Amino acid sequence: MTQMIAQLGEPGLLQLVQRFCPAEIVGDDAAVLSLIPAQSLVVTTDVLVDRVHFSDRTTPPHSVGWRAIAANLSDLAAMGAMPIGVTVGLGLPGETPVDWVEALYQGMWDCLRQYGGAIVGGDLVRSPVRTVSITAFGQVEPDKVMRRSGAQVGDLIVVTGAHGRSRAGLAQLLNPKLGDDRDLIQAHQYPVPQLAIGQRIRDFATACMDSSDGLADAVLQLCQQSQVGAQITQLPIPARLTDHPQVKDWTLYGGEDFELVVCLAADAASGLMREFPQMQIVGRITAGTSVELHDHRFAPEILSRDRSFQHFTPPS
Amino acid sequence: MTQMIAQLGEPGLLQLVQRFCPAEIVGDDAAVLSLIPAQSLVVTTDVLVDRVHFSDRTTPPHSVGWRAIAANLSDLAAMGAMPIGVTVGLGLPGETPVDWVEALYQGMWDCLRQYGGAIVGGDLVRSPVRTVSITAFGQVEPDKVMRRSGAQVGDLIVVTGAHGRSRAGLAQLLNPKLGDDRDLIQAHQYPVPQLAIGQRIRDFATACMDSSDGLADAVLQLCQQSQVGAQITQLPIPARLTDHPQVKDWTLYGGEDFELVVCLAADAASGLMREFPQMQIVGRITAGTSVELHDHRFAPEILSRDRSFQHFTPPS
Repeated sequence: MTQMIAQLGEPGLLQLVQRFCPAEIVGDDAAVLSLIPAQSLVVTTDVLVDRVHFSDRTTPPHSVGWRAIAANLSDLAAMGAMPIGVTVGLGLPGETPVDWVEALYQGMWDCLRQYGGAIVGGDLVRSPVRTVSITAFGQVEPDKVMRRSGAQVGDLIVVTGAHGRSRAGLAQLLNPKLGDDRDLIQAHQYPVPQLAIGQRIRDFATACMDSSDGLADAVLQLCQQSQVGAQITQLPIPARLTDHPQVKDWTLYGGEDFELVVCLAADAASGLMREFPQMQIVGRITAGTSVELHDHRFAPEILSRDRSFQHFTPPS
Repeated sequence: MTQMIAQLGEPGLLQLVQRFCPAEIVGDDAAVLSLIPAQSLVVTTDVLVDRVHFSDRTTPPHSVGWRAIAANLSDLAAMGAMPIGVTVGLGLPGETPVDWVEALYQGMWDCLRQYGGAIVGGDLVRSPVRTVSITAFGQVEPDKVMRRSGAQVGDLIVVTGAHGRSRAGLAQLLNPKLGDDRDLIQAHQYPVPQLAIGQRIRDFATACMDSSDGLADAVLQLCQQSQVGAQITQLPIPARLTDHPQVKDWTLYGGEDFELVVCLAADAASGLMREFPQMQIVGRITAGTSVELHDHRFAPEILSRDRSFQHFTPPS
């Protein structure tokens, strides 16, 4: 029989989750951490809600934990920072299986072990809906911070990988008749925070953000913050989806690929592309404020933020 | 007619909450903050859920915001730290009134303005239940950190104020027939984080924690972490509740008073008590591991953590 957390009780549950925290952190009102001297603190936070951001149908608990961490580390990567640690706030109904909680923490732990940082604090509370709140802290030299606001007319726009894979994987998870492509499903369940590339490009990037809310949203936000426009000339569509009828939408609006979208001077790009062959030039920063798709494979269009995911209105 | 956040839409909601954030923070994947050189980072987090930790019956949204911040700043105070900033993760149903969200942020802002720190980041997501996740960061000189584990046999146990006021205020809010004592209701709705006393006592304290989960829980945890026992000889009961039949329970187990419970050598106590007249000696650290109540006004008893609030099992 599946054991539920209401049966385990709070002391048992605390013991379970503390196995995933460094021993020296546990037991005080707050965690004490040291930064590398003269580095700035970088902070980001995400809230994930059952049936809004994950579900048993598409994401086993190990993947929920991994994704929650990866999303936050991706934000740190986009700032040029490296992770120090995370806090985990969990809201859970009493009838949550103990196994679910354990796999969730194992997923967070596995992602942190691979990319850096530790679970340094948290809160466990009763809630009618499973809710995972992550806050991640990183550190960065103050003069190496990447922001969204520095893009210059003439810069190239470069991404760290194809876009739309996560959305395509989600489609298959929601409707197995569509296929069972392990690479796409992996992209949805186990995204990779681009910390190494983030560290490397920060010497060259004029602006950067991650593509958690989609490629179109990222380019639009970079342009808005930098008061420039853009032409997207080569959508970074996934190789195995070239002929898929929804590939344009998924690439532009799918979201959750957690790649970096980077602006940089053209002469800096070629060296980086040799170093990281997965990087692709997708377009160029232009004068004005219009963000336009001019990829010969698709009808031209002007992009706008209305298509971005609206958290408080259900998608039509 | 009350406007709901689903009608406002995400861009409007973002604009609303960003009014409460420093302008230089808004617009990137993460916030960048500077610590005072050579100070350690202190991190703490709390998740608050509608009808579990607050309700429209007992806490208007301004108070929900204030309490959420005060609880986290209280944890920083207990570590001897001063606040830098907080992140706010909000899960909200679409049918949440815009006014509710605005008052929540106003309450957070008012508490931060008074005690220090700013809202430096956040996340707004759709959720079937109102959920407020706060992570607070502070800073402290590494050699001034107060922990739970340093209490010594013979230390005095001192608190920064009476206990049970918040619980008594809650009782009146839940059942107005019991009274309408503004002081008790204020204690419940607008607790005060003891940052100033935290700064002052850290030169003397051998151990400290806050009493968010009740006085009994705090003394038990301090004793457990320090491997000592305690005798509580003078319960810090609120003056106006002296003759109340539930005063002993509320003082020991009520929780949410957010006072500091401090262990320190007897010779350090008298000067501090003159400086902060609201501080009270409640007992003494003893050898062994037993935590006992020996207050002549009440029957003696041995305290245990079983009585502490169990988050995942409803109180009997």
